[in-house]
Amino acid sequence: MKKVMLSVSISALLFSASAFAKDFVLTDVAGNIEEANWQTTSGELGLTDAQPFSVTKKTLHGGKQEGSTLITIETKDLQVSLIPTRGMNILEIKSGDVRFGWTSPVDEIVNPAFINLEMRNGVGWLDGFNEMMVRCGYEWTGHPGRENDRLTSLHGRAGNTPASKVVVSIDDAAPHTIHVRGLLKENTFKLSALETWTELSVTPGVKAVKIHDELTNNSDYDRNYQIIYHSNFGTPILEEGAKFVAPVKEISPFNDYAKKGLKDWQTYLGPTKGYDEMVFNLVPYADKDGRTIAMIHNKAADRGIAVGFDTRQLPVLTLWKNTDTLKQGYVSGIEPGTSYAYPRQIERKQGRVKTLAADGRQSFDLEYRILTTSEEVKGIDSEITAITSGQKTN
Amino acid sequence: MKKVMLSVSISALLFSASAFAKDFVLTDVAGNIEEANWQTTSGELGLTDAQPFSVTKKTLHGGKQEGSTLITIETKDLQVSLIPTRGMNILEIKSGDVRFGWTSPVDEIVNPAFINLEMRNGVGWLDGFNEMMVRCGYEWTGHPGRENDRLTSLHGRAGNTPASKVVVSIDDAAPHTIHVRGLLKENTFKLSALETWTELSVTPGVKAVKIHDELTNNSDYDRNYQIIYHSNFGTPILEEGAKFVAPVKEISPFNDYAKKGLKDWQTYLGPTKGYDEMVFNLVPYADKDGRTIAMIHNKAADRGIAVGFDTRQLPVLTLWKNTDTLKQGYVSGIEPGTSYAYPRQIERKQGRVKTLAADGRQSFDLEYRILTTSEEVKGIDSEITAITSGQKTN
Amino acid sequence: MKKVMLSVSISALLFSASAFAKDFVLTDVAGNIEEANWQTTSGELGLTDAQPFSVTKKTLHGGKQEGSTLITIETKDLQVSLIPTRGMNILEIKSGDVRFGWTSPVDEIVNPAFINLEMRNGVGWLDGFNEMMVRCGYEWTGHPGRENDRLTSLHGRAGNTPASKVVVSIDDAAPHTIHVRGLLKENTFKLSALETWTELSVTPGVKAVKIHDELTNNSDYDRNYQIIYHSNFGTPILEEGAKFVAPVKEISPFNDYAKKGLKDWQTYLGPTKGYDEMVFNLVPYADKDGRTIAMIHNKAADRGIAVGFDTRQLPVLTLWKNTDTLKQGYVSGIEPGTSYAYPRQIERKQGRVKTLAADGRQSFDLEYRILTTSEEVKGIDSEITAITSGQKTN
Repeated sequence: MKKVMLSVSISALLFSASAFAKDFVLTDVAGNIEEANWQTTSGELGLTDAQPFSVTKKTLHGGKQEGSTLITIETKDLQVSLIPTRGMNILEIKSGDVRFGWTSPVDEIVNPAFINLEMRNGVGWLDGFNEMMVRCGYEWTGHPGRENDRLTSLHGRAGNTPASKVVVSIDDAAPHTIHVRGLLKENTFKLSALETWTELSVTPGVKAVKIHDELTNNSDYDRNYQIIYHSNFGTPILEEGAKFVAPVKEISPFNDYAKKGLKDWQTYLGPTKGYDEMVFNLVPYADKDGRTIAMIHNKAADRGIAVGFDTRQLPVLTLWKNTDTLKQGYVSGIEPGTSYAYPRQIERKQGRVKTLAADGRQSFDLEYRILTTSEEVKGIDSEITAITSGQKTN
Repeated sequence: MKKVMLSVSISALLFSASAFAKDFVLTDVAGNIEEANWQTTSGELGLTDAQPFSVTKKTLHGGKQEGSTLITIETKDLQVSLIPTRGMNILEIKSGDVRFGWTSPVDEIVNPAFINLEMRNGVGWLDGFNEMMVRCGYEWTGHPGRENDRLTSLHGRAGNTPASKVVVSIDDAAPHTIHVRGLLKENTFKLSALETWTELSVTPGVKAVKIHDELTNNSDYDRNYQIIYHSNFGTPILEEGAKFVAPVKEISPFNDYAKKGLKDWQTYLGPTKGYDEMVFNLVPYADKDGRTIAMIHNKAADRGIAVGFDTRQLPVLTLWKNTDTLKQGYVSGIEPGTSYAYPRQIERKQGRVKTLAADGRQSFDLEYRILTTSEEVKGIDSEITAITSGQKTN
Repeated sequence: MKKVMLSVSISALLFSASAFAKDFVLTDVAGNIEEANWQTTSGELGLTDAQPFSVTKKTLHGGKQEGSTLITIETKDLQVSLIPTRGMNILEIKSGDVRFGWTSPVDEIVNPAFINLEMRNGVGWLDGFNEMMVRCGYEWTGHPGRENDRLTSLHGRAGNTPASKVVVSIDDAAPHTIHVRGLLKENTFKLSALETWTELSVTPGVKAVKIHDELTNNSDYDRNYQIIYHSNFGTPILEEGAKFVAPVKEISPFNDYAKKGLKDWQTYLGPTKGYDEMVFNLVPYADKDGRTIAMIHNKAADRGIAVGFDTRQLPVLTLWKNTDTLKQGYVSGIEPGTSYAYPRQIERKQGRVKTLAADGRQSFDLEYRILTTSEEVKGIDSEITAITSGQKTN
């Protein structure tokens, strides 16, 4: 009995989760486990003291999604889908009839076995990109570049890495928060020993999705890291007159083309042929604890999504406005990160490439808050105003 | 009732198939379907009013063909094998004891998961090439090249793309033509939204295989496309004294080495060590509807295969004579296309890279006619003579 | 009866195995066989006249090892694991509580479907490297280079090639030697038709693992080949004061950095931060039959492993001292080969790139002898002294 308690508390320390939880191991390289299809429900678990939920895993078939897996969490308020075989990326969140995510020409959940990240001089990542949130890191991120005659392909490897261990944990205590943890390994002999325990949590009754990732440098040497949490939203949130709101300290255009968009950078066009993309580099203000929020909401300001993050972990924010046509991918990215989207060699010159000491750990905490009423949008607006607290945007 | 009829006729328009048919969905990304092993037969379907047939799908195992799939259509006259996981390519056609296809050193049906198209500066395609017909396209085709500092690897991606949807349809009416349709997606965010519904049809009692492909540009922008239907034949059709026959308006050597072969370009050598390959660029004559035919037949002119195509869709023809040794791959290619086999940047200068408008569609129709008697060979010869109708070859 | 005998003796010729054996086909592309999980034991086979053994195959799941396979041979003395999906490489050998192999930051048995050998300018091989023995060849080996504008990626393709046929054979006669044979194909149209029948043999009661590989050039043209048997050992054999012993005729440093290590090249440091790697090029002396031995043993000289090989097949030996930290990969490689680890274009200039004639065959024989007592270590020491027989090291 004592032994079990001990093991639970060590796991609690490691995962910063509740001390009591039911664990389900769905994938485990060490234990040679890969559950092809699996489900649990609050009913099945006898958890009748709070709102009902279910967690389902399925294996996908056909085309380039052969062998991909998908985990879906369903509560009364939310349906959250994430992809163990693609870096535990979030495919989409649904709340009622509103979908948070976007529609890419890539309409399959591509198994990384079919991806060559270095294709077309380093943009093979585009062959699989369609998620609401992709982990772009951790060994490198940003546009393709070259250091020491080696290509750093677009947005790194994590988002195309199949998880080596996946554990679903349900808190014993009501409201029975659901945690899905996944281990991503970017291990290469001599070059990289970065491992990330990702965690996505949903609490039945709460319209939010929390991310708590822990990156560890398992090497005996200091190692660089970069990360961008590439969070992407299309219709119905994104539309003509939709708005981006954030407590912005500094803004600058990513390139010449974006200069033209500086004057109305906070509002969005409808689907616009020939728009391509405008990218802005932002530095956000934060509250006294370093927390900040960015939001995108629709024209009527009665639907939106807020992305909360910690500026001590993720100091910069990229705003990606890709309001091209619907078929081309009508989407805007809110991308908290350690870096902007420049190639690593440029970020390095700017001093934004971080270093993790031997055995060092770094956490990343984000929260996606789902807004489906004008009150909720107003609430976030007030929080952002409070963070800005009258300070200027440069 | 009306609704059903409507849906049938839309489907008929889309697929240019008979209005009434039994459909079997073998692969479907949207429906999460991938039948591992499947069969239907005329007997099982109760179709006793015409010649018997069977259609079989199996999943392959071992080596680099782990996870590949193969569909085989068998009628009294023909056995046709095609590969859903490799661009719906035709592996081979057998008629009695005659095999149409060739023997490559690559003797497995390689799963594209094991292929890196950009390997060795863009010739990774050679690690999987062994089919009777490979779709070389549609985003680009030809020898490896470079545009905008991006590699265009040998012969494009379609032939190494696993089909996202595969449907077998059997016509309700005798002679119960069998259609195998497969959807190939070349979708890359920002860069490509080309989708091709391929269709291969066999009619029991008819010694022919028809191809009807429909390429759609699902993008809102004009997009380039190129396609070569790389159709390849070895022994027993190819042999010393075998002959290539076509209504040729213009012929030119692909390169200096091929100049030497101009004088006897229509006849074949036996397996010849050191021959490597000679390639000729042809422009065919066509009948008033744009249809033309090219044939390769054996020395005795009692066995061969005719490739019929539409010059309005596929205006040029590459003749690939690779009469090297048997082990090296003794094979000749009859390759109708929009392009010759030069890299895309060269084809572009020559004005042969086609453009498909936003939402545009383009069909490609080919017919492989199996010739197993001298009468059949003579018949095609007469058709070719009629098309040429005394015009000269330049 | 006669027919069976004949087939047995042809198979015996092909495999140089005992004339009578029980064969189990675990993988066969031609027969569409891939046993996912399989086992045989001496008990099950009724072989009670000698020491017991078992042979087990399992398919691995999760992360990047999804779809990898592993065969484990267990006798009273040894547990030998090899990887059919990765070039029949040896993962590790265990004898009692001693493990022969090493600990790489890459801690999964990576399915080659997830490997891009050309990644990072040709070092994608490092994403999967963790075996006790990797076949580095056969089309090329060594550090990444470039010939004819084509990358020759680190250490070739064989080690990341899934076997196309795998056969377990148990000798009928006691002591019932176990043979695991695997066919590796490096087949690329126009470029390569090298096939290797690998064979690993273990005799119950004998603390040795024998390798007998037969490389065939199935082409009609002479073809180059290179091979390094990259054999790697970490703790507990490798430790501070561990020793490398071999009959060395010539030694030279691989590069400038290794020059510093020349004075104490035969002894090892403990895990040493910042050491990285020192590589030495050796030419071994051999006995009158061309056989030679290299050994690595621990400080106490009571544990070690001897690598025996044939210098007529593998004339040179690379010593790789990678005594960096434990987490970085504390390991030393004893690497008999046709080549040193320089890129192919350099090895070619040095005349070390071998040629195999059309239809030519070349065998490679190695023996790993497991040493777990000081007597065994001394025995090998005496054999090495006998081979050196007083000759000098240059």
